[in-house]
Amino acid sequence: MINAWAATAAKQKLEPFSYDPGPIGAEEVEIAVEHCGLCHSDLSVINNEWGITSFPVVPGHEVIGRVVAVGPQAKGVKVGDRVGLGWSAQSCLHCHPCLDGDQHLCAEVVPTIVGHHGGFADRVRAQWPWVVKIPDGLSAADAGPLMCGGITVFAPLSEFDIKPTSRVGVVGIGGLGHLAVKFANAWGCEVTAFTSTDSKADEARSFGAHNVVNTRNADDLKSLAGKLDLLIVTVNVPLDWRAMLGTLGPKGRLHVVGAVLKPIPVMAFDLISQQKSVSGSPTGSPVTINDMLEFAARHNILPQTEHFPIARVNDAIEHLVAGKARYRVVLDM
Amino acid sequence: MINAWAATAAKQKLEPFSYDPGPIGAEEVEIAVEHCGLCHSDLSVINNEWGITSFPVVPGHEVIGRVVAVGPQAKGVKVGDRVGLGWSAQSCLHCHPCLDGDQHLCAEVVPTIVGHHGGFADRVRAQWPWVVKIPDGLSAADAGPLMCGGITVFAPLSEFDIKPTSRVGVVGIGGLGHLAVKFANAWGCEVTAFTSTDSKADEARSFGAHNVVNTRNADDLKSLAGKLDLLIVTVNVPLDWRAMLGTLGPKGRLHVVGAVLKPIPVMAFDLISQQKSVSGSPTGSPVTINDMLEFAARHNILPQTEHFPIARVNDAIEHLVAGKARYRVVLDM
Repeated sequence: MINAWAATAAKQKLEPFSYDPGPIGAEEVEIAVEHCGLCHSDLSVINNEWGITSFPVVPGHEVIGRVVAVGPQAKGVKVGDRVGLGWSAQSCLHCHPCLDGDQHLCAEVVPTIVGHHGGFADRVRAQWPWVVKIPDGLSAADAGPLMCGGITVFAPLSEFDIKPTSRVGVVGIGGLGHLAVKFANAWGCEVTAFTSTDSKADEARSFGAHNVVNTRNADDLKSLAGKLDLLIVTVNVPLDWRAMLGTLGPKGRLHVVGAVLKPIPVMAFDLISQQKSVSGSPTGSPVTINDMLEFAARHNILPQTEHFPIARVNDAIEHLVAGKARYRVVLDM
Repeated sequence: MINAWAATAAKQKLEPFSYDPGPIGAEEVEIAVEHCGLCHSDLSVINNEWGITSFPVVPGHEVIGRVVAVGPQAKGVKVGDRVGLGWSAQSCLHCHPCLDGDQHLCAEVVPTIVGHHGGFADRVRAQWPWVVKIPDGLSAADAGPLMCGGITVFAPLSEFDIKPTSRVGVVGIGGLGHLAVKFANAWGCEVTAFTSTDSKADEARSFGAHNVVNTRNADDLKSLAGKLDLLIVTVNVPLDWRAMLGTLGPKGRLHVVGAVLKPIPVMAFDLISQQKSVSGSPTGSPVTINDMLEFAARHNILPQTEHFPIARVNDAIEHLVAGKARYRVVLDM
């Protein structure tokens, strides 16, 4: 039996929950969970905001732990390895994106916490490609949030030909945003942090921002007109999208990783005149996750975390909901 | 004196108009116009739809002619060369985009027909980088529309790493769209034409479309779900944008070159889940124009044209406004 914490219906508190995972699958890996980050999308799934939750749901998709069992066809990891597991737990492995190294874009991808039990548990299972080794030298206690929050903001730097000479903006200095600032700084870029919380300005600079502007200040945005090559939007609230596009220079890209639910109104002219793009992405592929972990280890990049024991998971969730997390909550098993 | 046709106020018919261009500028080239395409953006400028027109306006920015004079600093062309001139007539040449080969994204770019007199005239002038040699073997009578319509749809293939194995959709089979179909076919791609005019289906196939679907038919769009790598939108009317995004596969790009004036409502989720982009671009750089002309000559790509003598320019405009152009009007001087 696996001992976990689950919500039995939308918007309910988590309660202890045990389930029998059955015999290990041929391609599965079982991880003894040591730490697991708490991500906003755990809340979205607990609250069934996206209408895709199956209850009871065991949240938790920023897992760090040790491999304790492997199926006969599982490759790449062995019992005893320290590993991480993120948003995705399984993909088909034979479709075009999977064979092309874009397993995160597989149409049959199984998220770790949707129709699958996640990492707020003593053990969790996943298909082997999604179980990625943690490099020596990266703190296991704090690395969890890299597995979802980290890869989500790292992938755009890796995917879109961002160069160390590029100018990168990050909107929202929270769980994802503070990691985006750290990654973009280590990538060699000039980094501008956008926050509507003035008290975060100094911290944003300590994470590596060269400039800090107020997201709600029109003059601040105007001062950046035409400056940025990439603007990573980590918040999930509507913004002054025209002003945001205005901060981009020629060929600039506004990239959303926060799932804002209201449509983004894009003026064709705002794209055409300076050849701009608006795009989005989910997490990243196993190879990109691996690259990110090695990059993070080399540059000593970790999230700034607050730890809660798993028995206080509901307090941790309240803390996150209240907007008090600085900047990522990790649950210790 | 240069003898031209001009509109003296918004929405007026063109009338004969002469102007003294003064001594030739150091970097200028003077072209004796032989043919000049008629583009929708000529109408937009005549009608001052974008609020940027200065009257009297001499339209015409799809020029083919022969060089008759060059300023002392003009490079790359000489008197007697057969050349083309498109949307842009001048750029600063020293800003970051200009020095980086993206002269079409120069913030100081001077369009051929905005604050500058265009090609519905016996002669026209432009700064030398924008005066591009027409390869031998490309019909001067019909090449004009390549200089704006052609480059506008060619540039996305060249700029966004479109491969011969890619699947490309083209929305709108008109002046731009029929050239997009021809270019994408010659690029080696599988080409799907989207038209709301069923009578254009056979012609779209003759231009090189492998499939034709009706832009307004929801079932047609559903049948394409997840299939396309690039969708070039050449129309300037609102579409079912969610359905259009739905035709894109992983990493797909919806690219607008038609300046639709109503905002395009983009759902963040529609971008995030399969890492899609929405983008736009104007024409292209001198190098891309040159590449396009060589590609067109090699693959025998020309617009399908209807010719009017310049004295009937107002009839030609009426023909275009009535939606009767099949597919591009060229005025002969």
